[in-house]
Amino acid sequence: MERAASESGGGVRSVLRALDLLALFDESHRTRSVRELVDASGLAKSTVVRLVATLEERGLLWVQSDGRLTPGAGLLRWAALAQEAWRLPLEAVECLRVLSVESGGESSRIYVRQGTSRVCVAQHEGTQQLRHVVRIGEEMPLWAGASGHVLLSGCTDAFLRRVAKGAGQDPEVLAERARLAAERGWAASDGERERSVAAVAARVTDDQGRVAAAVSLGGPSSRFTAEHIEAFLPVLTKAARELTELRFLSAGS
Amino acid sequence: MERAASESGGGVRSVLRALDLLALFDESHRTRSVRELVDASGLAKSTVVRLVATLEERGLLWVQSDGRLTPGAGLLRWAALAQEAWRLPLEAVECLRVLSVESGGESSRIYVRQGTSRVCVAQHEGTQQLRHVVRIGEEMPLWAGASGHVLLSGCTDAFLRRVAKGAGQDPEVLAERARLAAERGWAASDGERERSVAAVAARVTDDQGRVAAAVSLGGPSSRFTAEHIEAFLPVLTKAARELTELRFLSAGS
Repeated sequence: MERAASESGGGVRSVLRALDLLALFDESHRTRSVRELVDASGLAKSTVVRLVATLEERGLLWVQSDGRLTPGAGLLRWAALAQEAWRLPLEAVECLRVLSVESGGESSRIYVRQGTSRVCVAQHEGTQQLRHVVRIGEEMPLWAGASGHVLLSGCTDAFLRRVAKGAGQDPEVLAERARLAAERGWAASDGERERSVAAVAARVTDDQGRVAAAVSLGGPSSRFTAEHIEAFLPVLTKAARELTELRFLSAGS
Repeated sequence: MERAASESGGGVRSVLRALDLLALFDESHRTRSVRELVDASGLAKSTVVRLVATLEERGLLWVQSDGRLTPGAGLLRWAALAQEAWRLPLEAVECLRVLSVESGGESSRIYVRQGTSRVCVAQHEGTQQLRHVVRIGEEMPLWAGASGHVLLSGCTDAFLRRVAKGAGQDPEVLAERARLAAERGWAASDGERERSVAAVAARVTDDQGRVAAAVSLGGPSSRFTAEHIEAFLPVLTKAARELTELRFLSAGS
């Protein structure tokens, strides 16, 4: 009983805190000092020190000789594992490539839902000089953007309300967008997450017909007018159909 | 105070347990059921369920539609980060390649210390059909193998005793090996970690002269006789010198 209790309260909280500390390392923060982690996390210094020591022990953080922390070599093992787990079948890679080419060089991507976020798990970068850049594995909001609405179209009303509440959004507006995405099988967005960035996304389902992923085209708003989207839709829905037929994605939990 | 307390006891333990659950996923176990995690970890089912839910929430685990768990897409973000943090300078990549070629096609690798383990952070795979295969990011014991002894040669006596004790090894024997590695700047091993696998490793130091890494050649024992090692040593120590001069590695903590 004592064991279970420790994981239910402070235990789970500590795991979340440790993961949140790791998440503070990104492209613009490749190294961080303990002080910076304290400031960025709002946690007590003693807490940060303990969690850092734990993460360091397992190789998830690495202390440089100047005392600054970087992502540890232990992450490389999971890197290999995650990349293998999320490697697309060759046909799906080809499908993303063709979609990008047929759209005239926009970036094509696959997003999956992850809790109340979405994550880009694969992409074919466009050939246009002005392009929308997303990093594989980057967490993005579920409430915003065409892919988010497509992914939400398969969720329960209760879940949708939770997402809206968490993001300070009107649940009715979000429900309407999800409903529209469910009805059409696709969604479009413009400047919701980031100004001047637009996208159109279509639904990919698993073998039980549940929403498993969203396949999208993304780029600058100027190249995603109503006329562009009309032209994109046939190639996009064709790609969504092909990805669905490959049956390599599952809806998750 | 309450915060610090939760991380000092059950908190840190929960973080370690969560990371240990993640570590149960590997090449031979790409998916696992909760039942399998319970059996493999020895933890109570309620504990595993809670930790899995926490890891799933942050995208580190993913629930397939059949209910089995796989490494989650959230790991992809850290994968990119870790690979960037541990990407070798081009000169170091070339150095490993030349070392492999000059050894007649054995695999060359760089190991760093991670707590009481060592981790391979880079390699150039040999061209021989019978080759020693190591995965990047794989944790290996510090007490065994030529690279382990080179890495231990920079550690305190107290640390060395801790490693020996943790592995059920004679601390005097280990201390003698580390001493010899410190004196020579290199070490050789045969069948210590795995039968019929041999290695020779040399020291790479940081800008303060501390042991930062071990560079090694590894292969089957039959190709690592005393004569072979004598032939390997000049090219290996040359590579160690070059890697040291590139100054891209730090000794860690």
